[in-house]
Amino acid sequence: MLAGGTYPAMLALGLLRPAPAHAFNMEGSGNGKHIVILGAGLAGMASAYELNKLGYKCTILEARERTGGRCWSIRKGSTQTESGQPTATANFDQGQYFNAGPSRIPHNHELTLHYCKELGVPIQVYNNVNEGAFYFAEGKGPLSNKKIRVREVHSDIRGYMTEMLAKSIDHGALDSSLTKEDGEKIIEYLKAEGGLDVDKLYKASARRGYSELYGAADHPGKIGEAHKLADLIHSGLMDPDFYNVAEYTYELQMTMFQAVGGMDMIAHALEQKVAQSIKTGAEVTDITNLPEGVKITYKDAKGQQVINADLCICTLPLPVLSNISNNFSGDVSRAIDYIEYNKTGKIGLQFKRRFWEEDEHIYGGITHTNNDLTQIFYPSYDYLGKKGILIGYYNFNEKAEKIGALTYADREKFALEKGRLIHPQYDKEFENSFSVSWHKTKYNMGGWAVYGTETRKNQYPVLTKPDKNVYFAGEHLTYLNAWMAGAFESARYTVAAIHARVNEQRSNYPAPK
Amino acid sequence: MLAGGTYPAMLALGLLRPAPAHAFNMEGSGNGKHIVILGAGLAGMASAYELNKLGYKCTILEARERTGGRCWSIRKGSTQTESGQPTATANFDQGQYFNAGPSRIPHNHELTLHYCKELGVPIQVYNNVNEGAFYFAEGKGPLSNKKIRVREVHSDIRGYMTEMLAKSIDHGALDSSLTKEDGEKIIEYLKAEGGLDVDKLYKASARRGYSELYGAADHPGKIGEAHKLADLIHSGLMDPDFYNVAEYTYELQMTMFQAVGGMDMIAHALEQKVAQSIKTGAEVTDITNLPEGVKITYKDAKGQQVINADLCICTLPLPVLSNISNNFSGDVSRAIDYIEYNKTGKIGLQFKRRFWEEDEHIYGGITHTNNDLTQIFYPSYDYLGKKGILIGYYNFNEKAEKIGALTYADREKFALEKGRLIHPQYDKEFENSFSVSWHKTKYNMGGWAVYGTETRKNQYPVLTKPDKNVYFAGEHLTYLNAWMAGAFESARYTVAAIHARVNEQRSNYPAPK
Repeated sequence: MLAGGTYPAMLALGLLRPAPAHAFNMEGSGNGKHIVILGAGLAGMASAYELNKLGYKCTILEARERTGGRCWSIRKGSTQTESGQPTATANFDQGQYFNAGPSRIPHNHELTLHYCKELGVPIQVYNNVNEGAFYFAEGKGPLSNKKIRVREVHSDIRGYMTEMLAKSIDHGALDSSLTKEDGEKIIEYLKAEGGLDVDKLYKASARRGYSELYGAADHPGKIGEAHKLADLIHSGLMDPDFYNVAEYTYELQMTMFQAVGGMDMIAHALEQKVAQSIKTGAEVTDITNLPEGVKITYKDAKGQQVINADLCICTLPLPVLSNISNNFSGDVSRAIDYIEYNKTGKIGLQFKRRFWEEDEHIYGGITHTNNDLTQIFYPSYDYLGKKGILIGYYNFNEKAEKIGALTYADREKFALEKGRLIHPQYDKEFENSFSVSWHKTKYNMGGWAVYGTETRKNQYPVLTKPDKNVYFAGEHLTYLNAWMAGAFESARYTVAAIHARVNEQRSNYPAPK
Repeated sequence: MLAGGTYPAMLALGLLRPAPAHAFNMEGSGNGKHIVILGAGLAGMASAYELNKLGYKCTILEARERTGGRCWSIRKGSTQTESGQPTATANFDQGQYFNAGPSRIPHNHELTLHYCKELGVPIQVYNNVNEGAFYFAEGKGPLSNKKIRVREVHSDIRGYMTEMLAKSIDHGALDSSLTKEDGEKIIEYLKAEGGLDVDKLYKASARRGYSELYGAADHPGKIGEAHKLADLIHSGLMDPDFYNVAEYTYELQMTMFQAVGGMDMIAHALEQKVAQSIKTGAEVTDITNLPEGVKITYKDAKGQQVINADLCICTLPLPVLSNISNNFSGDVSRAIDYIEYNKTGKIGLQFKRRFWEEDEHIYGGITHTNNDLTQIFYPSYDYLGKKGILIGYYNFNEKAEKIGALTYADREKFALEKGRLIHPQYDKEFENSFSVSWHKTKYNMGGWAVYGTETRKNQYPVLTKPDKNVYFAGEHLTYLNAWMAGAFESARYTVAAIHARVNEQRSNYPAPK
């Protein structure tokens, strides 16, 4: 919340714009208090980074040999061991990568962009919207197993819907609060929006693309024929599987970004800032609140270790924390157990040739399917390059559970079999793959926190307060679940709370702007 | 125009994808025939580049000291002399630029991307769609002079329209070709599309943004209040000025690209390939068809010169060509005079600070206005950088004529006065400007060819055929007017026609795919 009662009012009137989100200046000092931080993901490292600035001493315990947590890009040599499977090592070419975890930065997640700027991590556009990608309805209706450009479906549906509404306004179906002139304006709008003709009828227009492209001289091109509305309905192309209202979501609206060279460049840059505080290979086994401070037990290569500190910030994902012994209150333990995490997985498929660009003119964006692939992501970097990595599936919940239960080899087989229905080039161009199933991954055991009304109301608030000397932080303790900005917001919230306690002042968490 | 009767049919069935657009292999040789090319824009240089590969000898005459024509990026030291004005020199910082001419490459203009790839010009996403930019209705209606995020208008209008249609379907207004179940599916779709509630009513949703952003712990955020439909109508926000159906246009759909470092990197790369053929500072004054070949008269620094060649490719813009003496046929002369070019202009404004990113979270994209600015473009490069150049206006027709008639200083004054209504930061952050009015620019005298039904039908075809030994080429001789792809398509069409004539074979112009 901003200081001063008139600021929000002036803001609402458009008289002021908010100050940059990065203002995080606090008075007072940490006076060398020792904060032990559990987990060297973005929340943990950002907490240490900000605490160090304020004069605290931090120790970060990280179970893995790498930092970053879910902010992880798979490159040549990346390794993964999922429960019940051997260790897999990525064999991608140098320079090729995919983001196993977060892959998108919304333009309105200013705090993530702030850290990119402050840490010197270059960003580039992530192409979340691409009208040239496909919708593919496997085995359903008259348009079954056809690859249909997004632009065709968007244009046809917009056309049919605006035609219907224009017709019904013509027949007098107008809200009584609107005048006849308003109705005429709306009809003009509908004609423009839907690409309707003078008679307010939808005919296919160039918006949906050409069956024969235009060119020079005597090549005017031919416009493709519109799909029938009934066909679109019966193939499920107006179902949520396809009709991509995701693009309307606040967080998924263009402009979107990614870190150049892999999203974990953000984690690496943070790691550089707090490297002296991090102990990797340190798996926490017990968290004990003491009357004054905390005692953390962990094991590393040398055996069991104990560390004492004044306060603790625990950023471990709740399904992991749930299995660590502790002396938390009953309410806290219950919240840790009750809050759910989703199941999710991705596979990266390296191809010899960027056939999606060369043959199909798809540059970035997402192809949507109604099958277990759910979606295929085309890379938003190295356009016009030689090789590339597709995300061959990115699925959730039941679909992710089903595919996550397969061996690495069978996941690859699944991704290739379903993917080649859309891109037959898979057969000739495929090189190798690497898959990550987050709910099968030790030290994660889930994608991200997913709240229902009940858990948000009853469990969530419990963990937003410290249990004595232990604070909880991470995307799961925000309203930005799944987003890197959640990790950063939570880190700042927790740092502000700790600093207020140490300095006996009011917390100065700068709410996002 | 693909060979083989079954190929298009197979294509339509999705059994085949077209081969890459860059296939331009022709048999036979130019045998050292001399082709004189008028104009070293993209069409002229691409013609020479392809002709050289086939064994022709080319000479390109270019009136300016620079190549590229309209493919021109304004950087420190760029100069411009418009009719009735002194020479202006750009004073931007090193590394800062704006594209005075083409600034966007559609992902479906494969030929432009082909040349980027073949010539080694790196590309990056051009952010044509940004839901975080503004609509600004100056002096109109209840929302007058408010900066309203695009996402608010999009979400509110989508909400109101889908609500109206869902209501009218409820009342039985469904096309007779659709079943009751189809109607139910459509209503489900409308609820998703519009973000309607269970009662099919539009309430503001997070899609339109927050009045108070969400954050960590006890910061769920507050969703902004929807604009009233009547207010949106009465402020003109459903008029074509604003409601941005341009984003639906085939050529303007995401994904879009630009050349890294300025669009004229494409021209520079082409220039490198044909540098030995180019004479700059050579202003053509006469074009004469001879019984065998052509005679071109031009003046350069040394005076009047004459060059003879076997054939000529004239890529000069028609308003320029119209003033050059010639012995063309009456039909050709008439076509040159009749085909219209538009008026258009841009101004680049350099600012000390990227306040649109830092204060307003606008990264690329376009703010639309109903005033003479028409639009403000935010740069799609150097995100999170220090300084930046906005395109302060990009207007057309009457608006471009009005602003183009001003002095450079008065254009800057206009851009600042109107722009500061939207971005008051202009006052403090502005450094310097550079404007280009294409219809006032010697050797252009217009933006691009604009066809009406009559000129397309009667004049255009005349110029797509040679007048004896003179061929005409450029974006104006295609269905891709204004686009760089038009210059490339036309160059290829003309090269194919010439090569067919020289080798007495059928033209092998590969139609765009």
